[in-house]
Amino acid sequence: MPAENARSVAAKVCAVLDAIGAEPAGLNATEVGRRTGMPLSTAHRLVQTLAAWGGLERQADGRYRAGLRLWEVAASAPRAGGLRDVARPFLEDLYEATQQTVQLAVRDGGAAVVVEHFATRGAVPTAARIGGRLPLHASGVGQVLLAYAPAVEQDAVLAGSLERYTDRTVTAPSELRRVLAEIRRVGVAVAVSTMPLPALAVAAPVAGPGGQVVAAVSVVVPTGGDAAAVYVPAVIATARGVSRRLAGSPLVRPG
Amino acid sequence: MPAENARSVAAKVCAVLDAIGAEPAGLNATEVGRRTGMPLSTAHRLVQTLAAWGGLERQADGRYRAGLRLWEVAASAPRAGGLRDVARPFLEDLYEATQQTVQLAVRDGGAAVVVEHFATRGAVPTAARIGGRLPLHASGVGQVLLAYAPAVEQDAVLAGSLERYTDRTVTAPSELRRVLAEIRRVGVAVAVSTMPLPALAVAAPVAGPGGQVVAAVSVVVPTGGDAAAVYVPAVIATARGVSRRLAGSPLVRPG
Repeated sequence: MPAENARSVAAKVCAVLDAIGAEPAGLNATEVGRRTGMPLSTAHRLVQTLAAWGGLERQADGRYRAGLRLWEVAASAPRAGGLRDVARPFLEDLYEATQQTVQLAVRDGGAAVVVEHFATRGAVPTAARIGGRLPLHASGVGQVLLAYAPAVEQDAVLAGSLERYTDRTVTAPSELRRVLAEIRRVGVAVAVSTMPLPALAVAAPVAGPGGQVVAAVSVVVPTGGDAAAVYVPAVIATARGVSRRLAGSPLVRPG
Repeated sequence: MPAENARSVAAKVCAVLDAIGAEPAGLNATEVGRRTGMPLSTAHRLVQTLAAWGGLERQADGRYRAGLRLWEVAASAPRAGGLRDVARPFLEDLYEATQQTVQLAVRDGGAAVVVEHFATRGAVPTAARIGGRLPLHASGVGQVLLAYAPAVEQDAVLAGSLERYTDRTVTAPSELRRVLAEIRRVGVAVAVSTMPLPALAVAAPVAGPGGQVVAAVSVVVPTGGDAAAVYVPAVIATARGVSRRLAGSPLVRPG
């Protein structure tokens, strides 16, 4: 098979999956073609092939969404499923102890991706769902992940647009640098988070086997009163517990 | 682009993902080629393209595993992520009330796929992890899913090999038919499950918006004593709660 052909078709398959993942209601094959800019006949063929495998599933309205087969493969992702399996008992303990929303996130380029999320019905509602993204500069887990990111990636985020979500969002690069330095100094972030309701996130870094920060754990609490400080030791202890387990685990070791 | 070419390359991409998903330690490109039977040069190109996208991630040992990008797309799968998001508060309540292992599974052909799983450190250890598979005839969730499967799919499972996991595994097709009929009659399964330690699963069906069974909920308890009966009402109530929420939700509606 010609080399460029295999690469080109495989890249189109990736584009189809991206388009499907970006649209909660799903897309039909024609919509996939339009969103990805590929010929409709190609979009149809790729969607049909992915659906025959089980990577996409056709809904009653003719739209396709991610399928169970894709989900099974993806559940083995070390930075998501693997990390979550290791972290879960610690997160459950944190959730039991605080009865507040608990999140675990990893950095993917310029965003924090939520890989685990516990919330009771009574807890502060959060914008994030599992698999959802949070801005690095405007969430607790995001600020922690940004604070420990390589300098060059930090610079890229600081040079980009820092969207204002609430009137307390840190949007000035110089102020954000100070915030990040303080996080590295104390090992914890207390951040106003981007929520439907006012909330504070208390977040701490999780280190991988090599000592590098691979994830962040947070508790999200209502802003009424200054309750955040109460959760700092519990969040730090949880993050350290997960780190200690990871040190003995081959699960999270990206190259 | 020639039609067969797009289909053929897309099918190869699916085969690469299947191979990666089946090997917890990951595979290098050469191993992918060997497992899938495709030319090594093709395997290399497909793996590289998937890795450039973020669907695969290269580990320090040169092997590839499922990547965060694939996981993000897959998290939107209605039969896994979508169902789990709806079911979670109910499962958490069941877990709080029982302090036992709680599972949510859907059927994929001849197996039950675990889409949610709660376990404390002290609970009965189970073989299943999130994204893992359980046999239909030898697990609580599996027996429920099989009991309500279309007759033709039930026949296929009964005609296949019914592996014996413990000396209490139901392996005779005629006996399994009786067990399935009883599950449909009472709306709950109490099954010896395939665990590292002896355990009983109490499982009940979750109905989708159309009334068809789309998932099963279970509690897994130690076999010492006959404690299983205690959990039956809680499991049924949880399954009904999830069903009621699904009736008002567009999340789970495969075509």
